[in-house]
Amino acid sequence: MLPLEDFKKLAKKTSTKVVLLVVDGLGGLPHPDTGKTELETAQTPNLDRLAREGLCGLIDPVSPGITPGSAPGHLALFGYDPLRFRIGRGVLEALGIGFELRYGDLAARGNFCTVDEQGLVADRRAGRIPQEKCVELCQKLSQISLPGVELFVLPVREHRFALVLRGDNLSPDLPDTDPQVTGLPPRTLTPLSPQAESTVRLVNEFLARAREILADSHPANMVLLRGFSTLPHLPPMSEVFKLNPAAIAAYPMYRGLAKLVGMKVLESGQKIEEEFETLKMHYPEHDYFYLHVKGTDSAGEDGDFERKVRIIEEVDALLPRVLSLNLDVLLVTGDHSTPAALRAHSWHPVPILLHSRWCLPDEVSEFGERACARGGLGRFPAVEVMPLALAHALKLDKFGA
Amino acid sequence: MLPLEDFKKLAKKTSTKVVLLVVDGLGGLPHPDTGKTELETAQTPNLDRLAREGLCGLIDPVSPGITPGSAPGHLALFGYDPLRFRIGRGVLEALGIGFELRYGDLAARGNFCTVDEQGLVADRRAGRIPQEKCVELCQKLSQISLPGVELFVLPVREHRFALVLRGDNLSPDLPDTDPQVTGLPPRTLTPLSPQAESTVRLVNEFLARAREILADSHPANMVLLRGFSTLPHLPPMSEVFKLNPAAIAAYPMYRGLAKLVGMKVLESGQKIEEEFETLKMHYPEHDYFYLHVKGTDSAGEDGDFERKVRIIEEVDALLPRVLSLNLDVLLVTGDHSTPAALRAHSWHPVPILLHSRWCLPDEVSEFGERACARGGLGRFPAVEVMPLALAHALKLDKFGA
Repeated sequence: MLPLEDFKKLAKKTSTKVVLLVVDGLGGLPHPDTGKTELETAQTPNLDRLAREGLCGLIDPVSPGITPGSAPGHLALFGYDPLRFRIGRGVLEALGIGFELRYGDLAARGNFCTVDEQGLVADRRAGRIPQEKCVELCQKLSQISLPGVELFVLPVREHRFALVLRGDNLSPDLPDTDPQVTGLPPRTLTPLSPQAESTVRLVNEFLARAREILADSHPANMVLLRGFSTLPHLPPMSEVFKLNPAAIAAYPMYRGLAKLVGMKVLESGQKIEEEFETLKMHYPEHDYFYLHVKGTDSAGEDGDFERKVRIIEEVDALLPRVLSLNLDVLLVTGDHSTPAALRAHSWHPVPILLHSRWCLPDEVSEFGERACARGGLGRFPAVEVMPLALAHALKLDKFGA
Repeated sequence: MLPLEDFKKLAKKTSTKVVLLVVDGLGGLPHPDTGKTELETAQTPNLDRLAREGLCGLIDPVSPGITPGSAPGHLALFGYDPLRFRIGRGVLEALGIGFELRYGDLAARGNFCTVDEQGLVADRRAGRIPQEKCVELCQKLSQISLPGVELFVLPVREHRFALVLRGDNLSPDLPDTDPQVTGLPPRTLTPLSPQAESTVRLVNEFLARAREILADSHPANMVLLRGFSTLPHLPPMSEVFKLNPAAIAAYPMYRGLAKLVGMKVLESGQKIEEEFETLKMHYPEHDYFYLHVKGTDSAGEDGDFERKVRIIEEVDALLPRVLSLNLDVLLVTGDHSTPAALRAHSWHPVPILLHSRWCLPDEVSEFGERACARGGLGRFPAVEVMPLALAHALKLDKFGA
């Protein structure tokens, strides 16, 4: 892709509007009985019409063969190279629970774990303690006080929590303490750069205090930390792409990712229908909308082929409400594939459709993985989606003379 | 693409010959009545036969979504990364009127403009003064003498001119004086690097003298300058690709671009037929020919769908004259798209066909945007066109052992 610095010069403010509809985990794999994927199985008359009138293709969120996490999958769609802009595990965990992370905060993903009498890790997940226990232990650990920093221990789910330190000069150059296997002690923290020395002392103090506090809480008698990270500085969409962008997403993590690139997060209900209504209501106020549908990914991760099909059909049925707004550019795609057959994110390229009066329609007449493989957009890196959207909205000046 | 340094090692001199036919602004958009693009509408029996026998695809001159100017569009086709080798606006303006720019010359694009009594820009184009007026004023400004430099003020069209300074140690690190909007004064020149300080003094002196000279020439009573630039050093095709290349182009700018990469510019008439005859005449002397057809782009920019169709048909009808030469590799493509519907260059990928006895023919049987989208070459960056041409001409050694 063209460097972002160049987009700052090429992008221009216009009255045209772009909607990016992210159907999370959209791509799938064939059902053994029918040979059709979730998207190919779903009855999607509206998406099929858009495919007929528009352009289809396949995107690789990161690069071929690479299974993306939600952060790189989304950053790419927003026009930010996921190889250049990397979001640490700790930051993502904090964003995922809606914590208002600030620049400079140091975040880590934590696990409650079980250590034996020799201090060796016996269970990296402490028997997946119930949520209430996690909340209770997080409250206890929140009492720890460290010199010069504010400390947050935030329950996530089961044995998972997020640790956030707020203070001056915190460095993310710390290794994981999680040894990743049992039978070893938690790894010792050593600074990965000279700037991290004071941070290591703070975290070691936290770990020592945690060990004391949790001593009697078997099986959750210790913690493991990984993915130390701080919020990366991303140039905002308003600056790079001259957009006034808004995000509509029911889940905190996606709202957090949208904020990272400078989107305004709109208040919306949890249902897809409510998300679409939010888009309609705020349509006059912004020129770029990111609308996130979570259920397809969850269904895929649950291995629930039929539920994923149903949610795709629900999205399709709601589409006319958006189309009635007479958008300039509509994009429908996913941040990655989540085939029910794999019960997980996967590397498979993701179908995309682009609808605009300025596109040269291809010969694809239905929206599906294999139809998109024959589409006019070809197969391309997801980071090119934003330039294509801006181009079709006539928001980019000519490059070079 | 492979770095140019590697091509220096891989490329080898052979007796095979490559012809690159650039039909400027080739790609288009559908006519509302027929749903067919200019190229799809044109009767092109020869191109269709070549498509049947050869390989088709779509190229992105710069990257997806980016509308290329002529310079980046051509450099890419010549095998030079347009993001790495950037041609400034001033240089292109001078090349466009056939000025023999030398390395080290500083060129800028100029506008005659109107300033009001407070010195604020009232019209950035001085009411688009007639060509004769532009010539007359350029002659007056040419009388300005600056210490140690030779100065050229070259009329272009209407209010447009090119300014060239020739001397030692001239720096292009100068901002535009054009404020891009009315109601502001021309921007003050400040050096963008320490090396530019003496150049700023020279250009400021030119501007002060121009203001005096033009004081009574309302509406053209001042000038605006932008795109200060010098000729970039491009490694010549002879060195990188071991070619002895020639250019046939009716318009000065394209001859200038060809010279930049070391092509010999052949004398030719203005008509497409004369260009083809020039190719025939000089065929024994070179192993790479770039032949440029301008009319398609002009027709597109005029919004004249039918004229663009006719010019494509004219090219098609002339093709047998080239084919009779028994070339080893023929490429037919454009430097960018210029849909009549948009009356401008556009970002749409450009159809390309490659004909060679060594290509593996695909299943495409006609030359058109949508047929090419199904082609064996797929969709790819235009900078890869040269390696493909060299390969099919058996001009590249194996990479690695």
